[in-house]
Amino acid sequence: MKNIAILGTGMVGKTIGTKLISLGHAVMMGSRTENNEKAQEWSKSNGSMASYGTFADAAASADIIFNCTSGQVSLEALQLAGRENLQGKILVDLANPLDFSKGMPPSLTICNTDSLGETIQRQFTDVKVVKTLNTLNCELMVDPGLLNDPGNLFICGNDPEAKFEIDSLLKTFGWEKIIDLGDISASRGMEQLLPVWIRLMGTLGTNKFNFSIVK
Amino acid sequence: MKNIAILGTGMVGKTIGTKLISLGHAVMMGSRTENNEKAQEWSKSNGSMASYGTFADAAASADIIFNCTSGQVSLEALQLAGRENLQGKILVDLANPLDFSKGMPPSLTICNTDSLGETIQRQFTDVKVVKTLNTLNCELMVDPGLLNDPGNLFICGNDPEAKFEIDSLLKTFGWEKIIDLGDISASRGMEQLLPVWIRLMGTLGTNKFNFSIVK
Repeated sequence: MKNIAILGTGMVGKTIGTKLISLGHAVMMGSRTENNEKAQEWSKSNGSMASYGTFADAAASADIIFNCTSGQVSLEALQLAGRENLQGKILVDLANPLDFSKGMPPSLTICNTDSLGETIQRQFTDVKVVKTLNTLNCELMVDPGLLNDPGNLFICGNDPEAKFEIDSLLKTFGWEKIIDLGDISASRGMEQLLPVWIRLMGTLGTNKFNFSIVK
Repeated sequence: MKNIAILGTGMVGKTIGTKLISLGHAVMMGSRTENNEKAQEWSKSNGSMASYGTFADAAASADIIFNCTSGQVSLEALQLAGRENLQGKILVDLANPLDFSKGMPPSLTICNTDSLGETIQRQFTDVKVVKTLNTLNCELMVDPGLLNDPGNLFICGNDPEAKFEIDSLLKTFGWEKIIDLGDISASRGMEQLLPVWIRLMGTLGTNKFNFSIVK
């Protein structure tokens, strides 16, 4: 059992949180306010191992923190979580720096020579950032068996032990073919998969698909 | 038999050119100068259906033009080919706007809210630009059977008939699972696959791989 924080109360946060509860972990869902309705509701329907609080409460309670906030507010959410509550811990970053404000398709607010994953790692130097899962619909994140062929999962980060721990956790989600792309700068490539992912979603008429690397 | 121009005398141009010759097409390889050594050598070793000349000679001779120049010089090469020689024709754009001048990994000189494919289409409005093959090593471009599972090929462009014609040509290369991503703006996603492609090449230790979309 791990103590895990989920930052964010959207679909991604709820889906990941519920999966972690089902696997026997203690999960606190964090948001801006102490009494976020969505977090309360999620907590109520997930039993005694589920709790909720502020971003800071959640981060303080946890060994592993999942950033499930929208990429546009991730840095702010992490600041609210508090440097002292994040220090030395593993931060799993699922977010994409997508800007929908100018309509579809969204653009990336950080890309090419930088990425959100790298920005978080630079701003929180004593946190072990692990980027993964960002190119999947949240139902697939926690249940790769929904696909006939689940395909590959990408992971990157600077700390090998943190990656190993998250790799093991992802295997309990059902992921088998996990490709370690190296240090956190691989976030650039992983986040830049979003434009073709969004286009594929339109072409295929579904968000239930994944990339597989074939050789 | 089609009359096809190859712009560029590098590995990509030679590989595509040789494949097209083997399929019975007439191929002229174009370069900056009339007597480029590489183009002469390629032409000599590819029989009577192979010829060479300037970018303009090659474009003038062809129904279909393959842009096999490096992305950094593609626009210049197309200007040298001449608007009048390209007009109304199909331009297959394989290039990626990669800048290696600041070392590895390269960055993209155009990305996110624009792409090389779109830039070419904007600058040459009466050319039918079809973007495809840009995420593959050139040996795989012309021989997908080198992979146990060839995976998918992406294609995009504004002109449905031009895409249909190139789709048919690519099938003669051996490509079966071709995904039409829509209009030329899909070039953004296709070109932004390069950062993760380059990272994967390092991780896998080979450039003989491809993306497959699994459902």
